[in-house]
Amino acid sequence: MRTLKVALLGCGVVGSDVARYMETHAADLAARIGAPVELAGIAVRRAGLPRPGIPDHLVTTDADALVARADIDVVIEVIGGTDRARDLITSAFAHGASVVSANKALIAAEGRALHAAAAAHGVDLYYEAAVAGAIPLLRPLRESLAGDRVNRILGIVNGTTNFVLDQMDSLGAEYPQALKEATALGYAEADPTADVEGHDAAAKAAILAGIAFNTDVRLDDVHREGITAITAADIAAAKAAGCVVKLLAICDRGADGTSVTVRVHPAMLPLDHPLAAVRGAFNAVFVEADAAGQLMFYGPGAGGAPTASSVLGDLVAVCRNKLAGITGPGAVTYTQLTVGPMADVVTRHHVGIDVTDGADVVAKVAGVLGEHGVSIETLSQQRKGSGCRLALSTHPATDAAMSAAVAALRAAACVHEVTGTIRIEGR
Amino acid sequence: MRTLKVALLGCGVVGSDVARYMETHAADLAARIGAPVELAGIAVRRAGLPRPGIPDHLVTTDADALVARADIDVVIEVIGGTDRARDLITSAFAHGASVVSANKALIAAEGRALHAAAAAHGVDLYYEAAVAGAIPLLRPLRESLAGDRVNRILGIVNGTTNFVLDQMDSLGAEYPQALKEATALGYAEADPTADVEGHDAAAKAAILAGIAFNTDVRLDDVHREGITAITAADIAAAKAAGCVVKLLAICDRGADGTSVTVRVHPAMLPLDHPLAAVRGAFNAVFVEADAAGQLMFYGPGAGGAPTASSVLGDLVAVCRNKLAGITGPGAVTYTQLTVGPMADVVTRHHVGIDVTDGADVVAKVAGVLGEHGVSIETLSQQRKGSGCRLALSTHPATDAAMSAAVAALRAAACVHEVTGTIRIEGR
Repeated sequence: MRTLKVALLGCGVVGSDVARYMETHAADLAARIGAPVELAGIAVRRAGLPRPGIPDHLVTTDADALVARADIDVVIEVIGGTDRARDLITSAFAHGASVVSANKALIAAEGRALHAAAAAHGVDLYYEAAVAGAIPLLRPLRESLAGDRVNRILGIVNGTTNFVLDQMDSLGAEYPQALKEATALGYAEADPTADVEGHDAAAKAAILAGIAFNTDVRLDDVHREGITAITAADIAAAKAAGCVVKLLAICDRGADGTSVTVRVHPAMLPLDHPLAAVRGAFNAVFVEADAAGQLMFYGPGAGGAPTASSVLGDLVAVCRNKLAGITGPGAVTYTQLTVGPMADVVTRHHVGIDVTDGADVVAKVAGVLGEHGVSIETLSQQRKGSGCRLALSTHPATDAAMSAAVAALRAAACVHEVTGTIRIEGR
Repeated sequence: MRTLKVALLGCGVVGSDVARYMETHAADLAARIGAPVELAGIAVRRAGLPRPGIPDHLVTTDADALVARADIDVVIEVIGGTDRARDLITSAFAHGASVVSANKALIAAEGRALHAAAAAHGVDLYYEAAVAGAIPLLRPLRESLAGDRVNRILGIVNGTTNFVLDQMDSLGAEYPQALKEATALGYAEADPTADVEGHDAAAKAAILAGIAFNTDVRLDDVHREGITAITAADIAAAKAAGCVVKLLAICDRGADGTSVTVRVHPAMLPLDHPLAAVRGAFNAVFVEADAAGQLMFYGPGAGGAPTASSVLGDLVAVCRNKLAGITGPGAVTYTQLTVGPMADVVTRHHVGIDVTDGADVVAKVAGVLGEHGVSIETLSQQRKGSGCRLALSTHPATDAAMSAAVAALRAAACVHEVTGTIRIEGR
């Protein structure tokens, strides 16, 4: 029986773990694939670096030549970034190789074109590792739930922001201090923009929504807010309301059956919600489906070994497909749902309002909200300096209504300031 | 493109939901499979019963003739039981049909022979619905983690017993009363033996261990204890120790790499363990793997619609395989691990001991335990009548050592009674 040959692009944290497990788990991989599989080349940016456990003779700086080799069956892409990764993946397809990628940014931005290219060349494109690290999520969505209808996904899919929010919650720290701590501990990168501004979570949300709803969701379709504006006061207000603040990726099927909404933003979650207990750099994703009901998937969302676990699971699948002469279930976008605007999304909202003192202030605030169709669910009032601080939660209202109500509140004579408007999820 | 034809065996709670979703989700199923799929016949035990939404002309009492029909591509078996189900499934294979089953008892008892029969006829045998209802578990274990190495599975896989233990915990009820409540609410069957004696969980443990460790685990290999001996005093003792009692299915890879142990028994779990929060009839399964680390899967463990979700996911997979002319990843038992005896399993233990009063009693008890190599981790002593009640937890010890120690304690002059010996897991 022939040996399947694998080209590895990238030998950083994930790549070196992939190479290591391909070595130590070689017998298991062969048994599960039905044929031996071996690393035929490893493309790196800089030659000559010490790479413990990586055979020197496999290392090359010529990635283009590696993916073009006629004997390569599968290319594993873990270099990240978009342009270079796309070109290499496209070349791999053209040369007959299937691709396993962990590249959420690329898949979210160009997944449709890449799937089409893979299909045109009769090869596979798998990327379980692109979303929620080690957690089996894309395969269960695409295959296990293939006979069901997913209505909602609600997930913590970025470990860095979860760690930062966790620090703010447990230490009462402000955002800059919590971020500094996360950076020092290796949970945040030197340039944390992709994580803290929600770009990373938005890419994952686009991928999840596309697979769950069998439609085309582009990165631009995702409403995105990061955590940089969250303050210690917001966290304290959440605590006072029996909640915790989490950065959530939320994908909803519209009640009309023709649209979906996909968004990433901080939200208050009640403490008794299962996602509220997800701490540190862990990820967890709730899935609600017609027949299955509520499912939850939990595990490590990042790291070399956990990501390698997902990459190798995909490797086994695409190798099996290669041997069988087939391709796996690819992107199916038959539902062609439209992606609705954030303005139409209906949630509860938490709002903090600094107001002047006066017996009629609550009535005035309620009146302004009511004019915009926003109804108060709970309200508490506390003295603050010479005025008062209102903390209120609303009944479900559209984002557009809430935005208009907040603008009107800001213009009201009795209002000093409106702060801490955060959406409430999970109840 | 041809239409794939499906025979449904059984039209009870699960079967009728399968039929219903095949109707309402027909367009989705066709898009995901790549060809339309239709119900070609439904075998029932008794004709003439009212079956809302089930087309009369599809119903037959001749299951043998149905599975032997040349035009049937897939047989869905949801009748349960072993002998009749096995004969029908075997006949389906012989007539060229793939099979989707929800039958944990049959798969656990005869999975190896059935897989061999399926392979011999070049068809598929899938049974995601057999373990943990709607939760995608077998596919993630077999496919997503195919490049990893699973070391441990720890799960709540029986909703009935979890509901009963939950009732005992929240109401302080004794077992018979809690079971009565569960029966009245439909969570327990009229004859609850399979659930409360752990047979159902043991079948699931055998299936999980076989797939997770790629070995052959028979139902007889599973050490099994049910919940019928659990008392309100046990639950109270667990509470006092900051724990909750759960019926767990536990599959462990031995440290030597050549053996596994598979067991189902009640165990104390610390309240802060994620499985401790799994309430009512829900299921949840922890999986520990080399690279992935700790994963958790959570969801509804039973019921018509949740089980139908898993059945239909399998239906899509086997239909896709049929169209591609391939079979999916079947049973792989290449590791040929031995299944070790319960006596060798190492856990912490909780023990309750009624002793005579006396300053030297603790020393005597500790001495008896020490003679058997069992070391005390925590101990508390309370007056009880004219004597005392000791509640203690041990450091990890083998089941054999603990059993011998308990026998020796029972023979000791200072010991009235040893009760409430429960293993401790999850710490």
